[in-house]
Amino acid sequence: MVRTILVLGAGKSTSYLLDYILKNAEKENLQLIIGDLHPENISADISSHPNCRVVALDIFNDDDRRRLIESSSIVVSMLPPRLHIKIAEDCIHYKKHLVTASYVSKEIEALNDEAKKNGLVFMNEVGLDPGIDHMSAMEIIDRIHGNGGKMLLFESFTGGLVAPANDSNLWNYKFTWNPRNVVLAGQGGAAKFIQEGTYKYIPYQKLFRRTELVEIEGYGSFEVYPNRDSLKYTDAYGLQDALTLYRGTMRRVGFSKAWHVFVMLGMTDDSYTIENSEGMSYRDFVNLFLPYSPTDSVELKLRHYLKIDQDDIRWGKLIELDLFNHSKKIPIKNATPAKMLQYILEDSWTLKKDEKDMIVMYHKFGYEMDGQKKQIDANMVVLGENQTYTAMAKTVGLPVAIATLQILNNKITTPGVQIPISKEVYEPILSELKSYGITFKEHEVPYLGYNPDTIGS
Amino acid sequence: MVRTILVLGAGKSTSYLLDYILKNAEKENLQLIIGDLHPENISADISSHPNCRVVALDIFNDDDRRRLIESSSIVVSMLPPRLHIKIAEDCIHYKKHLVTASYVSKEIEALNDEAKKNGLVFMNEVGLDPGIDHMSAMEIIDRIHGNGGKMLLFESFTGGLVAPANDSNLWNYKFTWNPRNVVLAGQGGAAKFIQEGTYKYIPYQKLFRRTELVEIEGYGSFEVYPNRDSLKYTDAYGLQDALTLYRGTMRRVGFSKAWHVFVMLGMTDDSYTIENSEGMSYRDFVNLFLPYSPTDSVELKLRHYLKIDQDDIRWGKLIELDLFNHSKKIPIKNATPAKMLQYILEDSWTLKKDEKDMIVMYHKFGYEMDGQKKQIDANMVVLGENQTYTAMAKTVGLPVAIATLQILNNKITTPGVQIPISKEVYEPILSELKSYGITFKEHEVPYLGYNPDTIGS
Repeated sequence: MVRTILVLGAGKSTSYLLDYILKNAEKENLQLIIGDLHPENISADISSHPNCRVVALDIFNDDDRRRLIESSSIVVSMLPPRLHIKIAEDCIHYKKHLVTASYVSKEIEALNDEAKKNGLVFMNEVGLDPGIDHMSAMEIIDRIHGNGGKMLLFESFTGGLVAPANDSNLWNYKFTWNPRNVVLAGQGGAAKFIQEGTYKYIPYQKLFRRTELVEIEGYGSFEVYPNRDSLKYTDAYGLQDALTLYRGTMRRVGFSKAWHVFVMLGMTDDSYTIENSEGMSYRDFVNLFLPYSPTDSVELKLRHYLKIDQDDIRWGKLIELDLFNHSKKIPIKNATPAKMLQYILEDSWTLKKDEKDMIVMYHKFGYEMDGQKKQIDANMVVLGENQTYTAMAKTVGLPVAIATLQILNNKITTPGVQIPISKEVYEPILSELKSYGITFKEHEVPYLGYNPDTIGS
Repeated sequence: MVRTILVLGAGKSTSYLLDYILKNAEKENLQLIIGDLHPENISADISSHPNCRVVALDIFNDDDRRRLIESSSIVVSMLPPRLHIKIAEDCIHYKKHLVTASYVSKEIEALNDEAKKNGLVFMNEVGLDPGIDHMSAMEIIDRIHGNGGKMLLFESFTGGLVAPANDSNLWNYKFTWNPRNVVLAGQGGAAKFIQEGTYKYIPYQKLFRRTELVEIEGYGSFEVYPNRDSLKYTDAYGLQDALTLYRGTMRRVGFSKAWHVFVMLGMTDDSYTIENSEGMSYRDFVNLFLPYSPTDSVELKLRHYLKIDQDDIRWGKLIELDLFNHSKKIPIKNATPAKMLQYILEDSWTLKKDEKDMIVMYHKFGYEMDGQKKQIDANMVVLGENQTYTAMAKTVGLPVAIATLQILNNKITTPGVQIPISKEVYEPILSELKSYGITFKEHEVPYLGYNPDTIGS
């Protein structure tokens, strides 16, 4: 019997997802239906596949949406997160499993009982971050716990970066994902984590000045700035006793210190609009945030304001962005500072056609076993192949695709709203990801923690 | 015929207001009714006055509230701003005038048509700031405009400070008003103003580093940090053509640079709660915001983190607050950083029984007349007499009281929701305030503006 997989939203992160389904279509007897607002953007390779049907779908058209969901065996929503709830409610009504790569919202969480009652798997957070981070961490944590170990420390970092071969600017950064999320990163509340049993809080105005360093063999050094809530998965991961819990975002070394310049100027603010933003030059934009003093140059005012020496690499980074250009204009009406900054950054940081992206992930697991303190570090590096087959699309799309087929084949059966932290879920997915080159390198390293007694010994 | 003035809320800013009404009670044939949730807190001098009646009133009891309003000739609301709307709606219903010292909310503004239709004066923002600032500024702006001048610049600053005689700490600051407002000052969005026709925006993380200085003869130097929206009254004041518009808050010199330490640490954040806040020592509170490093002292970590030299006066200011004390504890459960900081500051900055407060206000008016650029600076200083008769209570309460009697006596008659910017309103109030020592000193000074061509000439 043909099983129908309905994928809603075929944006740029879905290349590997769609390929995986179609590649397995014949063997697994699958029919793929893609519902998208702009079906004309879907490549002919996909849409012309005999097992694929593309449907123009406005997700707000209830009849069309419900008809498609009713006709499918399982639904994959790759739509913007706020739209998942509509789909999820329909999935309850028509008794369909649901897979997403997004964080579990309160609204989705509230469907847990109904999903369970109907024997439906609602698998969320099964992309990259969240997704592969959960699965790869749980595999090692379960192993440590299984061997009688006690977790002391868990740190987990992810970054979407440009591939080393195309890492050609002073920031060592290009946009490989939604630029808006990069500009707004870290806003909305203080970062919170635990080090050696002590709670720590970092406000946005210091977030990019509190980085720590990690190294990945063959790829050099990275820095990490903390995510907002490192304690979110303490219970889910079974880490209630761990003394150190820290999650963060990876950048190349020096990025954050330079980014802090934008934070302190106020350029990342998305809460108000700038008067006369349309047609404003990059230079005038910068000057909005500096004291009025027309006898001084914008350059000198900025350097003095933020105490940036002439030979500071941050200065080179600002110049490289053409930040003081008179003639380059921002064309956006009623723009927020964040939108204007994004425009300037996209001017410099947009990947060229032949450039590739890179995903890096790094976990640290500190634990105690047989009276000894130990540590395992694990890292993953995935390089993109081109602008369609990006590392981001691969690491987001493949786990979604594999999970979908596992659910369809009754390998993943536990019902309810969930994230991929149980062995039943992560084991087959991680195993299959390996065949796509998505693997973790593990190293046993000395356990240092952050406690000077340990460090001294 | 006896006229009844209903004052709702008899908090600590109402001493002068109530006295003024009772002092004029016999001559003007006034009956004062005070509706308050805690009438027992009202001093016997007031409550025992033959023309005064005190009523225990829960403002949320609709029947009681409406009965009182119905029985009055005019209503003065000194309640927290969010409660005004209930009163205002009743005032429309029972056709009563209304006076408040609070900003006009959107809800109150929406009653403008109904107030006009019923011939009711809804006078708001008739305290100190907003209040005396509006009236004193408009008196001079109207005079300049009346003489054919064209406004080029308007700056306006207000501060609530400790009186010089009791100015005894390194911060030159004590709480003379709601401490919570002081801790949260400047949050909620970037400050916006215009200098020489150029818009300027300052984010919170730089707000306290962008001060300007002013001097008041006999009182020394003050600094000013910008308020959130300096452009709010551009239209109301008729300043559409002015090139510079700037409103700010006055502190003694050096306060803001030291306050910036709290901002950068993240201690003024009111958006999340601290784990285990109850019983936390001042020292542990500080350490929450500093990197984990148990071999270093909290003191050294803070100095290094914010680059504070040992001989920096900011360091003395922090020490003076006992910020690194092991044994002093914060007793608040589920407290935000801002609430914890407030507790620590109140420990040091609470006015003692015999200490007095001071209100300072400073305006700058730049204008062009007969082809010449000119400037008038005007300042007001008011000292408190004691903890009941504070400068704050005087400058907030007297304009409210005077406005109330003017409305009652049909001297102020233009109906509608309004602020005191018309001559009909500000002239009699400012004139009477003079007899209470609330006066402005005016000085003609050279017009400098911020334009170097002018400065050079």
